[in-house]
Amino acid sequence: MINVVKIGGNVIDSPEALESFLDDFARMPSPKILVHGGGRAASRLCRDLGIEPVMVNGRRVTDAATLDIVTMVYAGLVNKRIAASLQARGVNAVGLCGADGALIPARRRSPLPVDYGFVGDIDAGKINTDTLRSLLDAGMTPVLCAITMCDDPAEGLLLNTNADSVACAVAVASARLDEVVMHYCFEMPGVMRDVADPDSVIDRIDRRSFETLRAEKIIHSGMLPKIENALTAVESGVRSVVIKSSTALNADAGTRICP
Amino acid sequence: MINVVKIGGNVIDSPEALESFLDDFARMPSPKILVHGGGRAASRLCRDLGIEPVMVNGRRVTDAATLDIVTMVYAGLVNKRIAASLQARGVNAVGLCGADGALIPARRRSPLPVDYGFVGDIDAGKINTDTLRSLLDAGMTPVLCAITMCDDPAEGLLLNTNADSVACAVAVASARLDEVVMHYCFEMPGVMRDVADPDSVIDRIDRRSFETLRAEKIIHSGMLPKIENALTAVESGVRSVVIKSSTALNADAGTRICP
Repeated sequence: MINVVKIGGNVIDSPEALESFLDDFARMPSPKILVHGGGRAASRLCRDLGIEPVMVNGRRVTDAATLDIVTMVYAGLVNKRIAASLQARGVNAVGLCGADGALIPARRRSPLPVDYGFVGDIDAGKINTDTLRSLLDAGMTPVLCAITMCDDPAEGLLLNTNADSVACAVAVASARLDEVVMHYCFEMPGVMRDVADPDSVIDRIDRRSFETLRAEKIIHSGMLPKIENALTAVESGVRSVVIKSSTALNADAGTRICP
Repeated sequence: MINVVKIGGNVIDSPEALESFLDDFARMPSPKILVHGGGRAASRLCRDLGIEPVMVNGRRVTDAATLDIVTMVYAGLVNKRIAASLQARGVNAVGLCGADGALIPARRRSPLPVDYGFVGDIDAGKINTDTLRSLLDAGMTPVLCAITMCDDPAEGLLLNTNADSVACAVAVASARLDEVVMHYCFEMPGVMRDVADPDSVIDRIDRRSFETLRAEKIIHSGMLPKIENALTAVESGVRSVVIKSSTALNADAGTRICP
């Protein structure tokens, strides 16, 4: 069984939270794959270099200068720190972006209706499972950032991609190799009926209950695409997806998404 | 036979030179390994962020902020651009730093007599040939930047390391797997008797002729450590080292260093 774990920017941005998470990740059984977001460091570096970050519908508009910055921060600083921190914990981590081993090809998004620039969308069917298999068979733990490889070199080399989408596509592709459980770690204890009440975590969500929770507006805004991604994953071969706190990686906790 | 190729900053800094070099590298037979320097982008980014680069004896003093910058530029921007450019040319490149797969452990340099900060020195005997072998056996082409893994996590995670030293150590370590030829590419046609005369390339240098050329001051300054490194490599199992122009990768040209 392959564990695919996604951590978001809130963990990356807190050195203590990241250290503690990596302790837990190191204890998780192999084979395992870590997919990480970027955190605020890229926006900070943009501002330090006089580039004002532009977001449309919560997604970063990525011009050529911004692509260089996210490549430096995600594929360089964040990815290599995590790989080295895991090595220091005895995990044979290997930090990669989607161009390495042609692991994650992406299609540059159409400039209409919104021109997001160097942003790519991925198709789980095109993920290079030969590369994944070679790494896992060699006992390595891939650590993946959300910089992908443009599938048409005429349109660019690297593309910025949503880390949640990368994690789901990698989980779906890994299900062609073995049974996959995906752990979707964030700052909350799970999907909650009432965000003010930590005891209101919903144990289990399937497609039908999701539609009801959405209609009742119990699930809304940023949680909607996360659950949509997770439902797509379990409907595409991933055994289960658990949405949980990054402090509870190895605990039986959080919200289990089922087909 | 494994080809280990080193390119320096002058190639990285010129988009045209880099494109042309990568065309040649793509045509070179596999297995092959590329080791790259950083070029001027790291110093530029330091200045843009208000950090004045400090060099002592031609080596960069690497404080914590500078380590972040070289990690971003070398392991992020430069490494991923090269990996993606090679993928676009049909080479199954995988861009790595020394922490990935624990490939290149290094010892943090003593702060005496000069405190270079987060700078590491490597021992070819400690390079992880299991990782190298796994990658090469899987048909991948490692693209290595000169950020190494600190062998003592109490002293740091990542270390900045001289790219020439990384290339030589990787060549020596690769010689434990197969016969190795190292190609040391730079902006000159080879080691020259007279830098003003392109026809004065010295065909062959061994330890004895090197001592003579040094005594006669025909070889001096920056060329001395390059040839010392190359002689160490051929005396440690590398079949041959060729110092040549980055425009002549696949040509029978340059200066051959022999034991």
